[in-house]
Amino acid sequence: MSNNSAPRQLGDPAVVLLSGGMDSATVLALVKNLGYSPYALSLRYGQRHSSELDAAKVIAKQFGVVRHEIIDLDLSQFGGSALTDTNIKVPTNVLDEPSIHNDSKEHIPVTYVPARNTIMLSVALGWAETLDATDIFFGANAVDYSGYPDCRPAYVDAFERLANLATKIGIQTGAMRIHAPIIDMTKAKIIHVGMSLGVDFSKTVSCYQADQSGLACGFCDACRLRKVGFHEALTPDTTRYQV
Amino acid sequence: MSNNSAPRQLGDPAVVLLSGGMDSATVLALVKNLGYSPYALSLRYGQRHSSELDAAKVIAKQFGVVRHEIIDLDLSQFGGSALTDTNIKVPTNVLDEPSIHNDSKEHIPVTYVPARNTIMLSVALGWAETLDATDIFFGANAVDYSGYPDCRPAYVDAFERLANLATKIGIQTGAMRIHAPIIDMTKAKIIHVGMSLGVDFSKTVSCYQADQSGLACGFCDACRLRKVGFHEALTPDTTRYQV
Repeated sequence: MSNNSAPRQLGDPAVVLLSGGMDSATVLALVKNLGYSPYALSLRYGQRHSSELDAAKVIAKQFGVVRHEIIDLDLSQFGGSALTDTNIKVPTNVLDEPSIHNDSKEHIPVTYVPARNTIMLSVALGWAETLDATDIFFGANAVDYSGYPDCRPAYVDAFERLANLATKIGIQTGAMRIHAPIIDMTKAKIIHVGMSLGVDFSKTVSCYQADQSGLACGFCDACRLRKVGFHEALTPDTTRYQV
Repeated sequence: MSNNSAPRQLGDPAVVLLSGGMDSATVLALVKNLGYSPYALSLRYGQRHSSELDAAKVIAKQFGVVRHEIIDLDLSQFGGSALTDTNIKVPTNVLDEPSIHNDSKEHIPVTYVPARNTIMLSVALGWAETLDATDIFFGANAVDYSGYPDCRPAYVDAFERLANLATKIGIQTGAMRIHAPIIDMTKAKIIHVGMSLGVDFSKTVSCYQADQSGLACGFCDACRLRKVGFHEALTPDTTRYQV
């Protein structure tokens, strides 16, 4: 795993996972700033609302990506997460939030979508191969999402190892890299980095239950983490709220 | 990677990748025979024809799977393979077949679909998590598909390692297993094993360019490998051909 590295040549292609939230927007800004030609990938995976994908389109355009692909893959057929299963309530208090399994040895939030990052990185890997790209960036964060197994450095390293065995370019050169440049940043740090690179956070949608216009609820865990981030960054919160 | 292992308890759930071809049909028969409760997963990934998915439905029903899910994920948006890109000709001679890149250090067929196995295993992993299943089976074969990076034992081992870092159940128990039970079998051996377990190969579709009724062309690489398999197995070829 490389947290932050420039392309071998300016303009080399890189695939960037872009959800439309503040983390992936900041990653896209970093990738652009490093000198890559970004190819943005979003997934319509059966999430509760589509406004984060609308946000992804706006952000992709703003940063002049070479191409933005939105891939359909409906994970709601499987259920198992508050983000894809409308029978599971979106939690609004990080401390009181129940795990999916009460006997969990580690606390894993109900907003965790089974294998989502693995699926998104796999699709990114397929696209990277057809582009002859060796660099994939995503906004995993081990600080805010410490309960998500697929947001940890060991996971990112394991995916990079897989990527070098799974692909033509990987077995030929060993050059496939999975970058998680904000994995150890606090939300306040992400906000500072994003702002310094021109990210307009009012255009990003983090809320788990935003409305169709992308207005945030202000109460879910994603909103709370974001509010705390702006507070600790000593920066006005530009999020657009429903009330 | 485990090539062949029984469930801890009879009836434990297992996710099985089922393409509709002879390899995955044999794997499903093995899984059933081992005593698992099989959950079959197929992917509509933009392949040239849908008759292999029709075959998958018939096979899933025959072996009494608990559930059969067909997931849509259109990889043809990316192109890069003869199986999803109609601008690339399906090869009909294994020896003369060109690689996608002429400077390849290893020969990789144009029928290789970028990251397909990684994507399918990732989706299987997500489903396994919601089912509390720790066993995923797929029909990778390193004999016939020696040019495909994602059909090799080292790849399967790397995915298993990832699976144990990517999932709740993996980080809690380390029990996730990726099984590739036919990885080192010749086509003739697969045919023998499948027949002994009741697979009706006339119902399976391997051909890269089968027609809508599932009739095989008889000339593409998949057909040739299959013909040689029946020949070496000293068994009548039950494949349904177009002529």
